[in-house]
This record gives sequence, structure tokens and C-alpha cells, in this order.
Amino acid sequence: MKSYRRVLPLLTAIVLSALTGTQSGVAQTLQDVMKERGLTEKDLLAAAKTYVPTGKRDDYLVFASGGQSGQVIVYGIPSMRILKYIGVFTPEPWQGYGFDNESKAVLAQGKIDGKDITFGDTHHPALSETNGNYDGEYLFINDKNNPRIAVIDLKDFETKQIVVNPILRSEHGGAFVSPNTDYVMESSQYPAPLGGGYVPLDKFNDSYRGAITYWKFNRQKGRIEPENSFAVEVPPYSQDLSDFGKLDSDGFSFTNSFCSERYVGGPGRPPFEAGCSASDTDFLHVVNWRKAEELVKAGKAKQINGFNVLPMEVAVAEGVIFLIPEPKSPHGVDVTPDGKYVVVSGKLDTHTSVFSIEKIKAAIQAGKFTGKDSYGIPIIGMQDTLHTQVALGLGPLHTQFDAKKCIAYTSLYVDSQVARWDYCEGKLLDKIPIHYNIGHLMTMHGDTVAPEGKYLVALNKLTIDRFNPVGPLHPQNHQLIDISGDKMALLYDMPLPLGEPHYAVGINAKLLKPIISYKLGTNSRTGSESPFKTRPGSEKIVKDGNRVEVFGTLIRSHITPDIIEVEEGDEVTLHLTNLERAEDETHGFAISGQNIQLSVEPGKTVSATFVADRAGVYPYYCTEFCSALHLEMEGYLMVRPKGLQPVSMTESKTVTTFTKVDYDRQYQKNVDTQKVIDEVVAFITTRNYKDFSAVVPQVEDATDQLNFANDAKSKAEDYAAKGDWQNAALWANQWWQYQVKAADIGMRAKGYLEQHGAKEVGK
Amino acid sequence: MKSYRRVLPLLTAIVLSALTGTQSGVAQTLQDVMKERGLTEKDLLAAAKTYVPTGKRDDYLVFASGGQSGQVIVYGIPSMRILKYIGVFTPEPWQGYGFDNESKAVLAQGKIDGKDITFGDTHHPALSETNGNYDGEYLFINDKNNPRIAVIDLKDFETKQIVVNPILRSEHGGAFVSPNTDYVMESSQYPAPLGGGYVPLDKFNDSYRGAITYWKFNRQKGRIEPENSFAVEVPPYSQDLSDFGKLDSDGFSFTNSFCSERYVGGPGRPPFEAGCSASDTDFLHVVNWRKAEELVKAGKAKQINGFNVLPMEVAVAEGVIFLIPEPKSPHGVDVTPDGKYVVVSGKLDTHTSVFSIEKIKAAIQAGKFTGKDSYGIPIIGMQDTLHTQVALGLGPLHTQFDAKKCIAYTSLYVDSQVARWDYCEGKLLDKIPIHYNIGHLMTMHGDTVAPEGKYLVALNKLTIDRFNPVGPLHPQNHQLIDISGDKMALLYDMPLPLGEPHYAVGINAKLLKPIISYKLGTNSRTGSESPFKTRPGSEKIVKDGNRVEVFGTLIRSHITPDIIEVEEGDEVTLHLTNLERAEDETHGFAISGQNIQLSVEPGKTVSATFVADRAGVYPYYCTEFCSALHLEMEGYLMVRPKGLQPVSMTESKTVTTFTKVDYDRQYQKNVDTQKVIDEVVAFITTRNYKDFSAVVPQVEDATDQLNFANDAKSKAEDYAAKGDWQNAALWANQWWQYQVKAADIGMRAKGYLEQHGAKEVGK
Repeated sequence: MKSYRRVLPLLTAIVLSALTGTQSGVAQTLQDVMKERGLTEKDLLAAAKTYVPTGKRDDYLVFASGGQSGQVIVYGIPSMRILKYIGVFTPEPWQGYGFDNESKAVLAQGKIDGKDITFGDTHHPALSETNGNYDGEYLFINDKNNPRIAVIDLKDFETKQIVVNPILRSEHGGAFVSPNTDYVMESSQYPAPLGGGYVPLDKFNDSYRGAITYWKFNRQKGRIEPENSFAVEVPPYSQDLSDFGKLDSDGFSFTNSFCSERYVGGPGRPPFEAGCSASDTDFLHVVNWRKAEELVKAGKAKQINGFNVLPMEVAVAEGVIFLIPEPKSPHGVDVTPDGKYVVVSGKLDTHTSVFSIEKIKAAIQAGKFTGKDSYGIPIIGMQDTLHTQVALGLGPLHTQFDAKKCIAYTSLYVDSQVARWDYCEGKLLDKIPIHYNIGHLMTMHGDTVAPEGKYLVALNKLTIDRFNPVGPLHPQNHQLIDISGDKMALLYDMPLPLGEPHYAVGINAKLLKPIISYKLGTNSRTGSESPFKTRPGSEKIVKDGNRVEVFGTLIRSHITPDIIEVEEGDEVTLHLTNLERAEDETHGFAISGQNIQLSVEPGKTVSATFVADRAGVYPYYCTEFCSALHLEMEGYLMVRPKGLQPVSMTESKTVTTFTKVDYDRQYQKNVDTQKVIDEVVAFITTRNYKDFSAVVPQVEDATDQLNFANDAKSKAEDYAAKGDWQNAALWANQWWQYQVKAADIGMRAKGYLEQHGAKEVGK
Repeated sequence: MKSYRRVLPLLTAIVLSALTGTQSGVAQTLQDVMKERGLTEKDLLAAAKTYVPTGKRDDYLVFASGGQSGQVIVYGIPSMRILKYIGVFTPEPWQGYGFDNESKAVLAQGKIDGKDITFGDTHHPALSETNGNYDGEYLFINDKNNPRIAVIDLKDFETKQIVVNPILRSEHGGAFVSPNTDYVMESSQYPAPLGGGYVPLDKFNDSYRGAITYWKFNRQKGRIEPENSFAVEVPPYSQDLSDFGKLDSDGFSFTNSFCSERYVGGPGRPPFEAGCSASDTDFLHVVNWRKAEELVKAGKAKQINGFNVLPMEVAVAEGVIFLIPEPKSPHGVDVTPDGKYVVVSGKLDTHTSVFSIEKIKAAIQAGKFTGKDSYGIPIIGMQDTLHTQVALGLGPLHTQFDAKKCIAYTSLYVDSQVARWDYCEGKLLDKIPIHYNIGHLMTMHGDTVAPEGKYLVALNKLTIDRFNPVGPLHPQNHQLIDISGDKMALLYDMPLPLGEPHYAVGINAKLLKPIISYKLGTNSRTGSESPFKTRPGSEKIVKDGNRVEVFGTLIRSHITPDIIEVEEGDEVTLHLTNLERAEDETHGFAISGQNIQLSVEPGKTVSATFVADRAGVYPYYCTEFCSALHLEMEGYLMVRPKGLQPVSMTESKTVTTFTKVDYDRQYQKNVDTQKVIDEVVAFITTRNYKDFSAVVPQVEDATDQLNFANDAKSKAEDYAAKGDWQNAALWANQWWQYQVKAADIGMRAKGYLEQHGAKEVGK
């Protein structure tokens, strides 16, 4: 009864405050809400475990593949709120991905046979690791359909590189990283002639091949180095998933396969599925990749399309590759956190098999093989290497691990369940139903040397009736499961609105340290200063023949230049630099009818090239609602018909004329506004605002705006001195616009300091 | 104390069950969870109000613009879970949008000046209405940057039509529908010469124009009819938002504006923002669109690019258009549910103005004008038409309405607040802070004749520090607010991961009745039967010169044909029909390196054309994880070098050979499997399964699979009779594959019937 007493007072307080509405102003009781919404007590507990209150953060971030959307999805745990879609293989205009020249260059790296590929079938994201655990620096993801790997920098969550696999036509076993991210693995799926080219199917066994690719990652540069990468040739079995060994199994990698029957369908023959699952076992490929690396360095690789490929015969002769029979049509191959075991599930078998690294090594050491496959690769006996087999249920697929020793979780596709089990003892512990037909599953840091447990996500392949219907194409369904207790407990059903995630990785949010802005003038895709960086005041339009280069800037709330005049047929390149420093002060930029949509985050410089091929008048504007005067952040691209002379715009054509009265009125308004600003400035500068990293750039931006205001003030006064009231009034108005912006930013900074307990300096 | 007693027993029960873990197996107490996660009592209540338990549905669906992503976002209230991104203006591979020929044809309708535009800047979604309230049939959305309107059918949540505005270069005041969806409104933003062409800026006042477009919607066809549509020419003020009148104001429409100064920036001149907000008032445009419609029918329109445009002088002469001064730089213009008032907020003014329709009509009737603008349009006095003005706060933008009479909600951009107020009495009632800088806001059915109140969503423009950081480009932030009580209460912060939604509409989920599958062989974009519909068994490859047409089918788990051989340089067109009927049984289809990614929902037929321009071997496969044998749902596109003769594949090249032993073993397995299936069939057929609409298509699909199984069984037995054990065993295996699929579907149907209380027939 001790715990009971401990709980009751708080809940009584909740009841009372809910009844009287003293806290929230909401007079409804919790009971009313539960009754009205049909919530059970279990639901309430799940709600409490997943709700993240306003302004609070999630504990873990998940990076999920976006499946056929070709993107990466980022969401939080436990709230399951999606925070971002990162453009990877598919152009995406909100982020300007594939619209600015810088990101087009990244996508162009992903061309295949010279062809633009405007999507990817992303499958397996991998986080960079240091000593076998996540370090929060990089993310890698593969494209099954067009064999490619992308590199995403977690400093800004942008795709920096795409490498095309030069020898494969299809892959699945990537991306997986070695314990210190020296290599990123990518293994083939459907066999084909390595390096491309046509070979008729009757030569399938002789000329079709798979390969396991080890991409060298240069962490300092943050880029994959194809010239220092290599692949190991493997038989035309359909290789599937892979994993790197770690600790006890460090230096090895594991890749399983299906259709080791090498069956091929065709007219009048049963389809692939008939012959591809006829045998009782397929082959687990065990590769000593460290030895392979040495052999490649020693020049034992052949070159295919300029890429290092270690031939099968060399790999066999040098003891690089071995096969172990595994239950038919396996899907997952997962190395345990201690590196001592490899867990494999044959999806058409009810057993999950645990292979012992020690036994595998011993068999290799002893040369104890049961035979060779058709390609001469030594086969190690299944029974000689098994630690245990456990009957978990129907359609076992993938396995992830808990912080608790020996505890694993395996997805059961056909049973639509997750099994919790002990891989040391070989014992089933618990099961939980999911909806429907789970593929991968994921625990926090669950594929590292130090799983954190706590949560499990079931990546379900079907959704059917779980959410409000939205037409024949359904969302996907990720289910969050609490694995901290004795029994697994379902917490949350999350629809995925775009793309079918295949796999996901969950990282402790503390490990991520993304930036909020770029150093002024950064080309974010290369990470270096853009040659087109433009400082305020140095905006210009440079014409050279039929080429026009515009060096422009963006700041609340104008685009400089705001009139760009070119001649029909000119090739126009825009270079735009966002002058803001403050967090979240992104500006967009779009031109009517020109297919230009840019996203320019604070400090970034982006470029875009297009041909102004049709005379006309094309408005452009900022596409992010950046400030109160956002709609006025506009301009015109004027495309003059070929040969027509430019017309200088006379100001007299502006219908609204301004007088001394307008000027004086605006001047007085500005003087009053300045008093308010001075108060805000006084508040901020007498606080320890420099201790608040979010506020410092705001103060810098506000100071910029005040400097601009002073410039405009000078201009207004100069025109007034000359009695030019039209320009005097306009500049007085612009002076006020800068004041408004300074005040807006200042107010936000002041509010932040108040809410975050800033102290008065010297008190 | 009465309510207190009513509540306590339940909460005590919660405490007890949480303590003992009897219900969920979770031994943690609610108190522990609240303490550990730092939840307040208010947080718990908000969690209870927004959590939607597994398998339950949301009450409202929201359709939000996807901003620069060019898509539409669908999410649920109160859970704020995103259910779908609908491809509208931007190609999106997951849904095959812009990848299959059918959807390419929709996107091609959106070309501008012959150019592909691969994004849109979507702003304002509008739901179709019947008698001024939502009917759940259609959704319209505009593209600000490339003036276009898209039509989305809510039967399948697919984009069916894109119409390009033939006279504008920029728009903002769309989409809004008339009370019976006869017309969809789209009004200009930045002025330009109507119909295109170059005119220098010194002719701005004379030759630049805006226009308010009324697109005729044919509900029976579900399509906009450009030939029956028209526009009303308006001055080169920057028109902004619009709304249709209803009830008392039916027949009128309202469009406001900024920059009625007609200021233009340029080299050496202050930017647009200076001159565009210099005056104290801009103009609200009042249009008698019914009269305009009559005049157009009477032949009073001129033709610009073949489109009906009612000239300003005709509109003025015939009493179609009037102007009313409104506070400077307004954003929202919103007609009250009773149609009696129009609410306008000048964002640089602290007042929100309520104009009376009765007074507007009276002034027009009496010919009481204060003057004319430069274009001869009569100006009605602001004071003559105002019902009231209310000082709500800084930066008022948009207004929506409550179910309660006279209650309105207005967003305050600069103050970052929502104001609740009474527009009849002109009284401020309540305010709630939001984070940060709210743009639009939205209540349930809040822009119709019958708002439902309950919830309000704040569409905030900045997010800054509200969520886990994900780099310089932040998510957007929608906040859900409970408006059912006396005080507004914040319930939920929702990040938006892709695109900046400008406006959203929330509809009662009961009004939506989407389909789950198509009639076999449907071209979903036209809604009619595809000429390329292919039935099982009639798959074929037709060659005609260098054109190859493939008529294929998709069903768990094979693609027919599974080998497609063509010659280098052939133009290949694939037609694929998904034979499934069951909910969520979508198949995907991608070919390596050919930029082909299709999404084929149950019953759909899609086509894709590409040139096989490079000899080689290209695997293809299903990209949706559709079944246990999903990975084996594969095939090969063989592109033969020009001139090379085809090679017939001999079966002897299949390495794995099968014997009588294999056949007998498989045969026995199949006989055993059939017993299990028979039991499932017996269960289903003795229940009233026909009363369950989700189960009927499952039973049909399972029956299909059993028929296929019987065919395969016959083949196996025939080969066995001939002593061809290779083919006998393969077909026996395929027979089993069909059995597995039938069992899988049958098990799902059985489970559904058990969970949903199906009754035994005759009992």
C-alpha cells in the first residue's frame, strides 16, 4: 500500500484542478474526456508516455528510409512526430533540392548511364559509428533500384554526396557501416553481369554475379572515396541483407541470400517465386573484409568500370569468403552487440538461427568444410556453427537488441507479431501483436555495441483499417512499443504519409548537434565558401553577351535587386545570399513560370540557372512567410524582346505622390518608434544575453536592421534637405520598415530572455 | 462535491490497475510517468484529449496546402498525425505521380508557355460545398507562383486536373468556392500585362493589371471547364485574398489588396516594401459575380488567350465592381457564416474591421460613392459600410468562425497570438499565445455556413526552438487549440516535415467516403476503363517495329511477364494492372536505371513509356512490401544489343534439379496445407462475412489464389504423369505459393471476423 499512498495525492490534485479548472481554464474532468473519447486506462498511460508538451523535446530521433519516395524521414520518439523529410534521391522543391545548382550537382552525381534518375528506392539508413556506437555525425542510405549510396551530413541534415555503384544493377544489403565507419557496405540483390552489358539468361550461372561493395568513407572530408573502395565478387545467388561484425567478429561481414537455386522464370515456366524458394536452405556469406582490403591494396583486384573488384577465385584462394547454409529465404542478418553471434531468420521457416562467431572462426581455422558450392566457395556446416535455433513464430525477419544482456527482438511477418527472446539461452520470452505484417523493427541504438533499449518501433508493411481512410493508397504504420517493462506494451500507432520506410535507426537526441545557420556565403553542399557570396551593398547584375549573372541578397523584407531586366534568350544565373543570422529565418525564392524555387537558409548562398526564353514580365518573391512584410518581398524579372532597347523607368510614373506633410508625419512616427526600440535594446543589453546562443544571432540581425534604418534615415533627410519630398517620404517609410524589423526581432529576443530567466548584468 | 465523487472511483481504479499492472502489464504508475517525463496536470489532460488509441479514428481530417512542396498534406484531428501527402504540382515517386503516363498527362496540363513546371507554391485549399457547407467530394488548391488550380477527387485522394490561368503571371486569392461550387475563384497577386508579353515598367499604371478569375466547375464531370469560365479585369493593385459571399451576400465576392500605391522598386529606389505600405488604406474589391457571369454570357467579355475577360470599363459601367478603403496591407478577407459581414484585417493596423453587407448593398443601391479610383471604379466610403472595428492586437491577419453565434478567431502575426472575439458586439473575449508568428488559422468547417467549432489550428510561420533541432531548415509548426471551453487551451504542437502550409481546411471525417480499390482496369486519372486493362491469363508482349507494348499483371507475388526482352533503342510501353481487390494491396514496380517507379493500387491500370537505349540486363521488382514472397516478385528487362538474335533459354541451365522425391515431398506438404486452408474457409463461409465490406474483397482474392493453386496443381500432376519431375516439382512449389497466399489472406479475414463479432450463419 506504500506506492498507493504515494500516488493518490497527486491524482487527487489532478482531479480537483481539472474539476475547478484552476490550472488550464478547461472545466472538463479527465473522466469526462476519457468517457467522451472512449479511452481506457491503458490508453491514458500510453498517452502520458508519448505526449511531448509544447516546447519540449523528444528523447530520440529516428532516421527512417522514405522507401520509394527516395527521401529520408526524421521523426521523434516518443512523440512519433515527423520533423523532416530530407531530400536525398528525389528532387524536392520546399528545400530547393534539385532546383538550385548546388544540389543539382549532388543529384547529377547519381546519374546512371548518363540518365537522370529522379527517385530512389531507399531501404536501409545507417548512422556513422565510433567504436561501434553512433556518433551523430553522418547518415548513409542506399537505393535498391539504382544501386547508389547517399551521404547525409547531420550538421545540417543535407545530402552531400551520391555515389553510383559502378558494377551492380540492383542492391539491397546496404547501407551498413564498419565499427569506425571506415567502410559503408552495399551488397547486390538480383544478379546481373557485373559492370553492365547484355548477357542472355541462358548464361545466368556462368556470367551473372553479385558483389559485396565496401565503400571507403573519409570522415575528415565527410565523403566516400570510390578510388579507395572495393567489391568482392559473389555467386549469382540473390544476396539480401548484410551486417558488419564488431568486437569479437570485427573484420568480418555477413551477407545472406535467397534464390540460391538460381531459378529464372520466363514464358511457360512458373514465376520466380516458385523456383526461388524450392530448397530448404540458402547461403549466408561470411567475408573477411579486412583480408579483402589487404588483397586489394596488394593489387589483387581486377578493374571493372575502373572499380576494384576482388575476383571470386582470389577470394576463395585467399580465404576471404565462406558460405554457411541458412534456413530458406532469410531476410535479416544481425550481429549481436557483443559481436559473438549472428542472428538469421529464414522467413519461410519458423526458426530463428543463432550462429556462433567462435564456431565459425574455429571451422575456418580448422579448414572444416562440408563441401564447396558450384563456384568453389567452401561451405561450413550449419550444425558446426549454430549456437541455437529458436521457434519464434511464422515469418521471422529481422532482429534488434536490448540494453539487457542476451535480449533480442524479432519481427514475425506472417504472424504480425514481435517476439522478445533470449539469444544466449535460446528461449522465447514474450510476444506482442502488431498491425499488420511487420517488416523491419528497430530499438534505440539497437544495431550497435551499446543498445539503449527503452523503445521498439515496428515498421509494418500493411495498414489496412488502422487509420481514417484516405483512398486506395494507404499510409504505412509504425508502432511504438515500450520495452522497458517485463511485458512489451504498445504505445502509439503512427501513420507514415509518404513512402514506405524499410528500415530505420534511432539515436539518442543528445548526440546530435546540428547548426542553425551557415557562415555567410556558404555553399552548403560542398561546405566551403561560395564564389558567389554576396555582401549587403555589393549586389550587382553582370552581363556578358547573352549571359547574365545576378549577385543578390535576401533579408527581411526585400530582395536586392528587385528588378532584373534581361533580353529574351539570355541565360540567367542567379546567386542569392541570405543575410540573416537568426534561427529559422529562411527565405525562399520563386519566379513565375521559370521553374525556379529556392530555399535559402540563414547564411547560405545558392545559385540557379535558367534561360529566359520568352519575353514577358515575371514576378518573383520570397516563398517563406518570413516577416510581416513578406508579401512585399517581391520583384520583377523583365524579359525584353530580342533587340528592344531598355526603357529607363521614370519615377514620375508612380501614381501616389508624397508631400512634405507625408514626410513629416512619417518622420514623427519613426521618432516615436525609435523610443520603443531603445527600450527593448536597453532591456536586452542590460541582460546577460550573450549567454543565450539563440539570442546572440537575433541581436546581430536586429543591429543590422538598425544600421540599415540609419542609412535610410540619412537618405530621407538628404532628400528632404533638397526638397524632394517624394523620395524623402519613401526613404522615411523604408527607415520605418527597418525599425519594424528590428523591433520584431528585438521583441522575440526579449521574450526569449524573459522566458529563459536571463539575469540583469551586474545584479 | 457531486462531480468529485463521480470522478474518483475511476481514477482510483486507474491508480490501482497501473500499480498492479493488471491491465497492460506495465507496472509503472501514472505518477511515475508524469514525474519522469516532467508532465503537468494540464499536459496530461491535453494528452488525453489528443491521443488516438490503436485502430481508432480521428474526428476531423485536415487538408493543408503543402506550400512550396507543391503537394497537399492530409492530417487528422485531434491526433495531428499526417496521413498522406497528395501529389499535386510536384512529381512524387512513392505514389508514381509524374512517373506513370496517366499522371504525367495531368501534370502536362500544368505546363506554362510549353515548359514543365515541377513544383507549385500551393497556398489555399478549398473543399467543395453544397449549400455553403462541405460535402466531402472535391478539393481545390492554387499555385501562387505559376497561376494554376488543381482539382483533387476525394473518392481516391488523387489529382485529376490542373488548369493554367491563361492571363495571370501570379496569383494568391484562390482557391475559394461559391456556395454550391459552381465556381472556383482565383485572383491575381503581383500585377502584370494580362495574357503575358513584355511591357516596360514605366507603363505599369497603364498596362499592368490584375484579374479575378471565376473557374466554372462541372461537378458531374468533376472537372473545371475553362471555356465556361471568366475573369474580371481589375487595377494593378496587388490583389491578395478573396472569399465568396454566401446567404445574405450570395452573388458577391470580395478580394482585398495591398500596394494600391502601385509603387515599383528598382535601382537606386527604396525597395517595394517601402512604397507598398506608405498609404494608410488599400482597397477591398467588391464584385457582383452573378452579374459578371450574365454579362459574359451576353458576350460582353473580350478574349485574352482565348479566355473570357470582362474589361474594367464594362464592369464599372454595368455596376459589377466597387472599391472600399480598408486598413493598410490587409491579408484576410472572411465572410461570416451568416453572410452578413466581411471581416478584414490590415496587418499593419491593430484593428480588425467588420464591414456590413447590408450597408454595402445600400450604398451601391443608393449610388452613394465618395469618388472613383484612377480607373473609374466607384469607391464606397469606409465609414458608410463599417459595422465595427475592434483593436485585437498587433499584426491581425486571418479570421475564422465558431459554431457559437458571432464568435470569431483572428490570428495576430506580430503578437504571436490568437484572439477570440465577438464580431456582432465588436468585443475582444480571450487571447492565447502561440509559437511563433501565426499566419492563417482554421476552425472546423470554419469558413462555411455551419462552423462546427471544437478545435482551432494555428498555422505558425516560425518554429525556432520548439522541436528537436534538425538543421538550418526548420519544420513548420501547427498548434491545436481546444476552443470548446470558456478559455482557449493549447493541446498539441505539430511539426510539419515538408513544405510550409499556408492555409488548411478541416472537415468532419464522417463526410468523407473514399474507395479502397478501383474497378479492375481503371485509369484512375480519367476515372474510366483503361484501354490497356489486362486480365489474368491474357498478359502479352506486342512488338511493332521498334515499339514494344507489354500488357502485364501484378498479383501476390509475381509480375507477369517476368522476363521482357527488347532490342536496344526500342520504345517500350508497360501497361500494368493490379489484380488484387483487398484493401491496401498496392504493388509497386521499378526497373533498374530506367527511372520507372509505379504505384499500382488494387484494380488500377497504369502505363509507363521509356526508351531502352542501352543494351544490358535490368532487374525489375515490386517496390511495395506486399507479401512474404515480396522479394521474389521480380523479373528482368533484357535489352539486347541492336541486331543480336534472341537466345531461347533452355531450362537445363537451371542448376538446381528436382526429382520425384522433391515432388512427392512438396505434394504431401501441399495436401497438409490444404487441410489448414479448408478449416479457415469453413470458418469464414459459416459466418456472415458478406456483412463485412472489408472482408468480402479478401475472400474474393483468396478464392482467386485458390483457383490459381488448382491450376498449378493440375500442371504439376500433368508433368508428374509424364515423369518430368523438374517441372512437376516446380509447379508443385508454385501450387504451394498460391496456397500460402490464400492462407495469408484467409487468416487476415478470419481474424477480422473474430475481432468484429461475426455471427455463425443460421445461429
